[in-house]
Amino acid sequence: MDKTVGVLGGGQLGRMLAASASLLNVKMVILDVGDHAPAKQIISPLPPLAHIEGSFADPEKVWELAAKVDVLTVEIEHVNVDVLEQIEKKTQIAIHPSPQTLRVIQDKLLQKEHLAAHGVPTPRFTQVASSQQAIVDAASLLGLPLMLKSRTLAYDGRGNFTLRSLDQASEALSFLEGRPLYAEQWAPFVKEIAVMVVRDVQGSVRSYPAVETVHENHICHLVLAPLRTADPKVGQRAQHVAEEAVKTLSGAGVFGVEMFLMPDDSILINEIAPRPHNSGHYTIEACLTSQYENHLRAILSLPLGSTSMHLPSAAMLNLIGTSSEMQEITRASHGALSIPGANVHLYGKAECRKGRKMGHVTIIGESDAQVRERLRALLQYVPSSSPDTHAPPLPEKGHSHTFPLVGIIMGSDSDLPVMLPAARTLDHFAIPYELTIVSAHRTPDRLVSYSKSAASRGIRVIIAGAGGAAHLPGMVAALTVLPVIGVPVKGSVLDGVDSLHSIVQMPRGIPVATVAINNGTNAGLLAARIIGTSIPELREQMAEYLSNLEKEVMVKVHNLEVVGWEEYMVKK
Amino acid sequence: MDKTVGVLGGGQLGRMLAASASLLNVKMVILDVGDHAPAKQIISPLPPLAHIEGSFADPEKVWELAAKVDVLTVEIEHVNVDVLEQIEKKTQIAIHPSPQTLRVIQDKLLQKEHLAAHGVPTPRFTQVASSQQAIVDAASLLGLPLMLKSRTLAYDGRGNFTLRSLDQASEALSFLEGRPLYAEQWAPFVKEIAVMVVRDVQGSVRSYPAVETVHENHICHLVLAPLRTADPKVGQRAQHVAEEAVKTLSGAGVFGVEMFLMPDDSILINEIAPRPHNSGHYTIEACLTSQYENHLRAILSLPLGSTSMHLPSAAMLNLIGTSSEMQEITRASHGALSIPGANVHLYGKAECRKGRKMGHVTIIGESDAQVRERLRALLQYVPSSSPDTHAPPLPEKGHSHTFPLVGIIMGSDSDLPVMLPAARTLDHFAIPYELTIVSAHRTPDRLVSYSKSAASRGIRVIIAGAGGAAHLPGMVAALTVLPVIGVPVKGSVLDGVDSLHSIVQMPRGIPVATVAINNGTNAGLLAARIIGTSIPELREQMAEYLSNLEKEVMVKVHNLEVVGWEEYMVKK
Repeated sequence: MDKTVGVLGGGQLGRMLAASASLLNVKMVILDVGDHAPAKQIISPLPPLAHIEGSFADPEKVWELAAKVDVLTVEIEHVNVDVLEQIEKKTQIAIHPSPQTLRVIQDKLLQKEHLAAHGVPTPRFTQVASSQQAIVDAASLLGLPLMLKSRTLAYDGRGNFTLRSLDQASEALSFLEGRPLYAEQWAPFVKEIAVMVVRDVQGSVRSYPAVETVHENHICHLVLAPLRTADPKVGQRAQHVAEEAVKTLSGAGVFGVEMFLMPDDSILINEIAPRPHNSGHYTIEACLTSQYENHLRAILSLPLGSTSMHLPSAAMLNLIGTSSEMQEITRASHGALSIPGANVHLYGKAECRKGRKMGHVTIIGESDAQVRERLRALLQYVPSSSPDTHAPPLPEKGHSHTFPLVGIIMGSDSDLPVMLPAARTLDHFAIPYELTIVSAHRTPDRLVSYSKSAASRGIRVIIAGAGGAAHLPGMVAALTVLPVIGVPVKGSVLDGVDSLHSIVQMPRGIPVATVAINNGTNAGLLAARIIGTSIPELREQMAEYLSNLEKEVMVKVHNLEVVGWEEYMVKK
Repeated sequence: MDKTVGVLGGGQLGRMLAASASLLNVKMVILDVGDHAPAKQIISPLPPLAHIEGSFADPEKVWELAAKVDVLTVEIEHVNVDVLEQIEKKTQIAIHPSPQTLRVIQDKLLQKEHLAAHGVPTPRFTQVASSQQAIVDAASLLGLPLMLKSRTLAYDGRGNFTLRSLDQASEALSFLEGRPLYAEQWAPFVKEIAVMVVRDVQGSVRSYPAVETVHENHICHLVLAPLRTADPKVGQRAQHVAEEAVKTLSGAGVFGVEMFLMPDDSILINEIAPRPHNSGHYTIEACLTSQYENHLRAILSLPLGSTSMHLPSAAMLNLIGTSSEMQEITRASHGALSIPGANVHLYGKAECRKGRKMGHVTIIGESDAQVRERLRALLQYVPSSSPDTHAPPLPEKGHSHTFPLVGIIMGSDSDLPVMLPAARTLDHFAIPYELTIVSAHRTPDRLVSYSKSAASRGIRVIIAGAGGAAHLPGMVAALTVLPVIGVPVKGSVLDGVDSLHSIVQMPRGIPVATVAINNGTNAGLLAARIIGTSIPELREQMAEYLSNLEKEVMVKVHNLEVVGWEEYMVKK
């Protein structure tokens, strides 16, 4: 950790990089304009080193930075690549990512061509001259709506125009005037997703879990981790696509890969940022090693850290200025302090502006349900945001939770009286659940899809009730890695022994956690005990529940003694 | 967050406080000697503010600091209290903790007297003059061994002398020469434990979970969180004792309360630090709000954050110099980079010295077993530390793990053949477990103590096997909040149906997750699925296990087709 790192740019990404540098005692020098640059405030290079006052586009200043450090990196891709190439040629200083990579990334058309040439899936695209005819031609090639984009200096929605009809061609031209353009096929995505990839100097890569990103006015607004999908393979595929894309680029460090998840579950790359990225802020609190520390480790040839999440759920909300009024940001961050698991990050920017990223809040929790509840609490403090589909209110009684931890299923609606006590038990412990009908014999396809998607939707336990030749619990257990609780439902013959044996006598390899015949309550309690293995507070609630059972009996002990058993029988 | 905080002292505690200040964009000014003061390196107050060069004992410098800030706090208790009292009288500046508290804490005899006067349990103590006779008198009052301690300026073992026989009295006097003394009864503790308490300006308190602290040569070496005990109430009692003690002091902020856990499970307070403390470093990675951020929130009258741990297990190892050789520290921190879940904190101290705290590593993980395994890996890089009782090697095959997640118990050794497959299944998934005999009918007391202690020892699932009138699983379930898996063992009569019904037909309120008769394998698999709800990697292993089951059958499908069923029967 004895190398000095120079950073082109001192914004919030530089600031978070500097925080990681402090932990490892890595010396860091920032090049940016003004003492108020967020990164400069939180790392003070000791003399003879000092931060540099100037622009990361200024060749002289970049050379000045290079003279002080062993490794150069960027917190923004819009830097002067020519000077970096000169430094690369004339010095031994390591530059990450490589100037070549920065050049490819800076020009979004070059970036797309590079990706397409390497077989990486992207939306279709074409170069476009700045003329109405060129736009018409592009639209006839790629269809409408058409994304017209500036090839350079486009970010946070600046330099993008969505052409919905050909009438808008001249409007688009004047909006994008003076910029080199290209056009992209409209991607009718289901979700926007992102994967952070870290690449070491030898070129091997590791990726963070896929996350969902939610944009408002083309600016990243919210990140939800991990990505939840019905198809359990989507997250892994997204990581694979992102890793393959990053492998085509050169230089070490972190890359943010933004992607579209399409209706057919295919994945297209939207764009790549050659640096830590907004969609990876959540890694500071939620992953074993943050994207910032891993960026440093990568560019300093240190071993990469684990990219795994170490907790079940996280959400990151940007605090974006809506005006010059700093008070709005202060209010939101103060509000966040009252929400457990909310981590406030303020960037120390001197002035607030509309659309400016002033800070963010990362919320962590034991479940999606808990994180979304905390997010709903936070959103009320955030200007222009309202509790929306990503943080819906709790369901009405008798309806399924949007982010269940337990799935209660039964073979037939006739089983509902037996299963309702399971639901009410989960209500008692405030455990989010869904309740529905899945019949092994009458909806076998639904059985398969329900069972296979449960884990990747965030469910941790399935309670399945069935009677007679009760195949549901065992078949579900064969199709999921989750613990399955079986409730034998008593039928009209055999007193439920048929159901019990059908559920409990599973072959070696596939267990079903069987409870007593018709005992939905115990199924709910067992689910609560299982969920309690990862939520300590639930264990305390369960201890209280057991203590209440004891108290109830002790009241009866007392009553029996007071009134005597003859009278007691009458009273009861 | 518009108030400026001044900190007396700029060491590692100040540095971590400064890191929290950056997150909240709280302005902070440090008073300490030298640019190399760890805290000064990572927060740069913007002009007109600047850190102050000088000693926190120098009244002029403290006044200089006071002139710049709204709130004063300390990162070390050995500050000039007189000047703080003057500032308190003459200005509106808030001082946390209060000068009165600092005065009481600085003098360990006053501190003990204060605690005793408020009914807080401590070891017995007495004032001692600096004479052999006084020491003999103290020993006759408090017994031998006797702790002789300096009343002031004692920390990290400095100023402590353990008097084992009266012969050592003159040795003790020369070792402690010139210091005001007191004597403390020797506390033959089982463990040293600590609780961080945060107190807001209104005086209400919150405490972090109790942790185990391990000292080497009187210096805190290792912290293990959370505290594991057979008695499930110890942790809560420790938190209660610590909270009550802190309530007797004035001023806001974090207090570190060091305690002894005695053989009878009673708790005695050793001493209190009026500031963030080494035993709370782990809170940065392991708790919803770190001790540092909570200290800031407290002294700035902001809402206190949650003190809960958000992951199951953590360990903190100090990196302490053994010589002037910085290379040792670099080697240990480099080593840590290769260990998943290890978080390196280097303090940026200019020089290494024997006994100097140069950094620390916090290891987080999904279980005690995982954290201790990672700790064992780390200890090999740390000079003077060897993998010890806190990070023992894995048990030999057929022996219990020291930090089990699953407890396998059976009513009789005759059940072992049925339960071994459960153990082997857990071996397959590398899940740590213990295996022992607990008989409901022959060892009822053991049944109670085993069941009640399981959760607080870190166990997450119990597998209980029993035959005939099989009471073990149900009775265990009545005495724990953990999920209990019951394995009906087939006896000599009734084909195991007696065991099955005894285990599965539990009354409403107490569930047992029952598997098939004699199916120890499925019990192990069910335990793995349950543990998998909190350890994602296990879910992937389970998916692979299921896929292998499928492959095994597909091989048989193939073989059957190739050789035909007549031949197949012969071959088989």
